Order: sequence, then C-alpha cells, then structure tokens
Amino acid sequence: MKTKLLLAVALIALASTASAQVKPEDAIKWRQSGYAFMAWNMARIKTSVEGTYNKEEVIKAANAIQAIANSGMGALYLPGTDTGTGWEKTRAKPEIWTDKEKIGKAAMAFNKEANEMAKVAATGDTAAAKDQFGKLAATCKGCHDDFKIKQ
Amino acid sequence: MKTKLLLAVALIALASTASAQVKPEDAIKWRQSGYAFMAWNMARIKTSVEGTYNKEEVIKAANAIQAIANSGMGALYLPGTDTGTGWEKTRAKPEIWTDKEKIGKAAMAFNKEANEMAKVAATGDTAAAKDQFGKLAATCKGCHDDFKIKQ
Repeated sequence: MKTKLLLAVALIALASTASAQVKPEDAIKWRQSGYAFMAWNMARIKTSVEGTYNKEEVIKAANAIQAIANSGMGALYLPGTDTGTGWEKTRAKPEIWTDKEKIGKAAMAFNKEANEMAKVAATGDTAAAKDQFGKLAATCKGCHDDFKIKQ
Repeated sequence: MKTKLLLAVALIALASTASAQVKPEDAIKWRQSGYAFMAWNMARIKTSVEGTYNKEEVIKAANAIQAIANSGMGALYLPGTDTGTGWEKTRAKPEIWTDKEKIGKAAMAFNKEANEMAKVAATGDTAAAKDQFGKLAATCKGCHDDFKIKQ
C-alpha cells in the first residue's frame, strides 16, 4: 500500500514534468471539464439507482467515469495552477500541492471505487450498483471536502 | 448501415426524452466539458505520435476519448439548447437539431474511429497509432466544420 502510494505520487510528479508545455489556463479548464463531465455521469447513475434502473445508461456512465478517473488527471495540477482561471476561477485548495500523500491517497480511493463501479455496472445487479454508487460518491465528497474551495 | 443509422438517431431522440429533467445550462456545460476533456486527450496523443511515443499515456488518453464518445452525449442536445450558456455561450449550429441524419452519421463515424484508436493504442504500434490519430482527428474536424460555430 505504502509503495503503491509512493509510486502514485511519483507518477503524478513525473506526469507534471512531462506536461510542462501545457498552458496553465488550459490545464485548469481541462481538469474542470473532467470533473463536470463526471458530474453528469454521476447524475445519470443516481437517476437509475433511485428510480427506474437503466442498465445500458449506467454502463455508459460508469465507463466514462472509470476512463476519466484512470486518465491521469494529476498531470493537470501543474505547479502554478493553484490560482488562475480555466472555465472559471480554480477552486483547488493549496493542500493539493502541499499534502501530496493525502491527495495521492484520495486519488487512489476514487480510482478504486470508479473501477469497481464499472465492474458492478456491467453485471446489471441493481442493488450492488446502488451500494457501489454510494461508495463512489463518498470518495468524491471526501476529496471535495478536503481539496475543493466551497462556493 | 441505414438501419444502424436510423437506430442511432432514434436512440438520440429517446435519450433526449429520458433526460428531459436536466437543466439546459447543465446540458450545455456538460457537453462542452466532454469535448474539452477530449481535446486534452487528443493533445496528449498528438504529443506522443509527433514526438517521443509514450504507450501508457496514449492508452489512457484513447480510453478516455473512447468512453466519452460512447457515453451517449447526444442526450445532452436537448430541445431548446441550441441557444444558451454553459461554461460559455453554446457554439452548436442549428443543423444539429434539423439535420438528424447528417449528425447521426457524423457521430457514428467519430465513435468508430474512437473505438479503433483505443484498440490501436493497446497494441503500442506507433505507426498505426499515428495513422489512426489522423483518422480520428478528421472526424472531429468534419463535425466541427459542419456543426460548430467558428469563433
């Protein structure tokens, strides 16, 4: 676990270096886009697990969240993008850059639950999907509480 | 092909009905987010095929594009969202709502090339990836030319 975590932190750092040519405003816009697109897909799963379950809809939504979660968005947290404007002013807290261990742990928890959500969605087990949606949403909320400035 | 196309158009219409409770400004914001997030991932693949090839980077980027392409974004083109503001004023042309056959065809072409990009990325064949990136980018451009208002 500890090794995996250090590896994740190292990969984020490496990715940041590799993307050094990216404009700060683009990096902010792109990460805001990733989260907003996931928000749509979370809303779709929520509609299904709280109302009439639509297996295909949940699969498509869960696959999108999974692929975005695994896309390496850490690379978009370039040094210097703790302030600045993409689509809107960034709401990233400074702790993202100062508490690498905590953010690495949060990112890993989110990825784990996103991967599990896609697996569960494929089975079409509605009770399991509802349960997994709750777990996934909790990792979103946890990260927002710790690392996103409230409006 | 014709049947598939009609099915795609029907599914888009159906999805639109199912998402009728979505706020127009959210629908616009979410579709803008999907495209912007894909733009990042296209940029990453471009960097790889034009410079030092990074297999893992291309796989992650191609998977994200594939999942977004297959997520059913047609549902975000709700009636009445031909005008309005998400992150910014929508640049969708009215033809999206009036030429369903043409937009259906463009969407299918894009999905086909996005699925192929993910397959090719997994092989790590750099020449094939470069070739497929060109084909995929051409479907993006084709759709922008026909359906996106120039800035």
